[in-house]
Amino acid sequence: MGNYHTLNQGEVVEYARGIEGVFPVGAQLKSREIGDGNLNLVFQISDPASGQGLILKQALPYVKVVGESVPLTLDRVRIESEALRIQGELCPDLTPKVFAYEPDLALLVIEDLSDHIIMRRGLMERGYLLFAEHIGSFLARTLFFTSDLAMDLQEKKLRVKAFINPELCNVTEELIFDAPYKKSRMNIFEPHIRDVVERIWADMELHLEVALLREKFLTKAEALLHGDFHTDNIFIKPDSAKVIDPEFAFYGPMGFDIGTVIANLLLNYSGQEGWSPDAQERTDYRRYLLDTVRDLWTQFELQFRELWNGHAADRMAKTRGYQDLYVARLLQDTIGFAGAVMVCRVHGFIHVADIDHIEDVAARERAQRIALEIGAALIKRNRSARSIEEVLDIALQAVN
Amino acid sequence: MGNYHTLNQGEVVEYARGIEGVFPVGAQLKSREIGDGNLNLVFQISDPASGQGLILKQALPYVKVVGESVPLTLDRVRIESEALRIQGELCPDLTPKVFAYEPDLALLVIEDLSDHIIMRRGLMERGYLLFAEHIGSFLARTLFFTSDLAMDLQEKKLRVKAFINPELCNVTEELIFDAPYKKSRMNIFEPHIRDVVERIWADMELHLEVALLREKFLTKAEALLHGDFHTDNIFIKPDSAKVIDPEFAFYGPMGFDIGTVIANLLLNYSGQEGWSPDAQERTDYRRYLLDTVRDLWTQFELQFRELWNGHAADRMAKTRGYQDLYVARLLQDTIGFAGAVMVCRVHGFIHVADIDHIEDVAARERAQRIALEIGAALIKRNRSARSIEEVLDIALQAVN
Repeated sequence: MGNYHTLNQGEVVEYARGIEGVFPVGAQLKSREIGDGNLNLVFQISDPASGQGLILKQALPYVKVVGESVPLTLDRVRIESEALRIQGELCPDLTPKVFAYEPDLALLVIEDLSDHIIMRRGLMERGYLLFAEHIGSFLARTLFFTSDLAMDLQEKKLRVKAFINPELCNVTEELIFDAPYKKSRMNIFEPHIRDVVERIWADMELHLEVALLREKFLTKAEALLHGDFHTDNIFIKPDSAKVIDPEFAFYGPMGFDIGTVIANLLLNYSGQEGWSPDAQERTDYRRYLLDTVRDLWTQFELQFRELWNGHAADRMAKTRGYQDLYVARLLQDTIGFAGAVMVCRVHGFIHVADIDHIEDVAARERAQRIALEIGAALIKRNRSARSIEEVLDIALQAVN
Repeated sequence: MGNYHTLNQGEVVEYARGIEGVFPVGAQLKSREIGDGNLNLVFQISDPASGQGLILKQALPYVKVVGESVPLTLDRVRIESEALRIQGELCPDLTPKVFAYEPDLALLVIEDLSDHIIMRRGLMERGYLLFAEHIGSFLARTLFFTSDLAMDLQEKKLRVKAFINPELCNVTEELIFDAPYKKSRMNIFEPHIRDVVERIWADMELHLEVALLREKFLTKAEALLHGDFHTDNIFIKPDSAKVIDPEFAFYGPMGFDIGTVIANLLLNYSGQEGWSPDAQERTDYRRYLLDTVRDLWTQFELQFRELWNGHAADRMAKTRGYQDLYVARLLQDTIGFAGAVMVCRVHGFIHVADIDHIEDVAARERAQRIALEIGAALIKRNRSARSIEEVLDIALQAVN
């Protein structure tokens, strides 16, 4: 990393101009910094005349946490670029195109997705969203084809090694699987929900389940995960979805990725307290969100089983009864991890706009309580769950 | 590995002479090749005058399998030397001292253990053996202190990476978790047990359990395992035990190591058909072996829980109820893996002397059938097992 320095706008434009086959020779390129500057510099370079564009993302060697700058490995860009390459091979339509990776600069150049919107915004603005099939397919293909079910067992181990990602996994381990369950400066919440947060800190049954889920996150090298599959990392338009930012990628339990997507749908579901003043409209949109949760799991399961039946490389994967047991445990993991992601996004360190941006205080508080109730119930249910319908029941009960 | 060449006796002696602080200056060193030459060259260098000795072990870049020479990574010597270093720090009395590691030559120089005997021989010759406490302690300490329970989570991940061991794990995956359950040239058995071998090939309930155990072996990076913990790799004398040859070391499920030791005790138990012509003597020795199985687990559990209570670094490890659940699953894994190791050692590629060296054909056949019966029963019991006593019951039933 000897040549690392943060790029200025001029350098960025020159770098973008050097990418072959994107911009016409002599184009008047415009540059705009669109990142939040906490973790990465993100520049959008565009040529208004031709309509062409690129995103240049440069990792910063630190992260801003509670007013401090904490060092954070630039190796995450290598992880991201390798994950994008693998995901791009498995799901070319659902992965942004990578134009360049510059290890010395911790720089990644990817396709401009400004014709898409961020899925979280789509959910909050009730844009028409048809993503269960897309994201179900992305999950089924990336998780199946990077697992021991489909890969050469020795190559898979080398891939586990390449994706050892201690610093970014540590962020998840602390923010999702530890801090929300104790008094910690990494928890941020409004005083009006202190009673329920304190109940979570004291709930030993809940802590036991979190410890078990956390153990899976720490030890179970099942498939190459995206690792941070929330709805800010999904770009969407009516006929397309793109999954971005896999810098948290590592070999972990499949259910963590699926659960993270479902958690984000249910966080939006909780947030409808603030986004739907009309009761019927709220009920309808929530119905749509629950249908999407069911469809996402159903699409995932359908495609995962099809891949297994058609492409399992591993002889033992064909053992009678194994696939059913595997999928049943995957659903349980998914439900548990969905609950853990929901809980941490309400009173943990990183929140979601679906809830935090509700202006009405009473509605925001109701949304926070609903999300914590659903999250805790999913966590407690995980080891006994048998069907995705149980998730829907839990979600319905929390708003009635 | 540019300078690799196999050493001759002269070079070996000169190398040994260069190790500081072992042999007196000018000692008349004797050299003896004591390996089987299949995987490694092993030389014992001794100075009869001073009584000092050393073992020089040089890995060969191939392994002999079914008449062929198959390449096998020399990286296994790095794995072995790093595992010995870690085990030596955790269990100095139970790990041979390492004098040198020479990566270019794939050479390891360790302490001479010729005052000990190989534990398998000890078991077969009924030498007085007191090892449950020693080996229970080795297992408890090495497994606990290399796990997420005791290590910094980020350092543990770097260690997982350092011990990625695809080629040697592959040997286990094929020989223990695959070939014994299908018609394969990797299975070697006498025609008189073909009926029971064919039942194993056809037993779908058994295959499902093996698939689940194999999945754990493939994915569960719980602790740094020895990886090949059979009784030829334990050197023993009345007041001492040394665990050698951790070249199969990798991060895997703890139960695999514990189960391998128990399997080898029960293979010897099965072999008593041939080693105890007197029925009472046979019953007594078998009783002793079963007591040892129980003591080994009990010692392991006791020490593991003590370490957990006293040394858990991880806050979540202190969650109420977690330790009990963890140990309960560990016992189940142990029982399942013990069964899998037993089965493969009867009709798989690598057998045990405890059974194969029985001269009387009828007794040998009985021993083979007993071992397969116990092994298959342990595999089928694994997920429902609650107590180590169930292992003893299964073993007793197989000889009644």
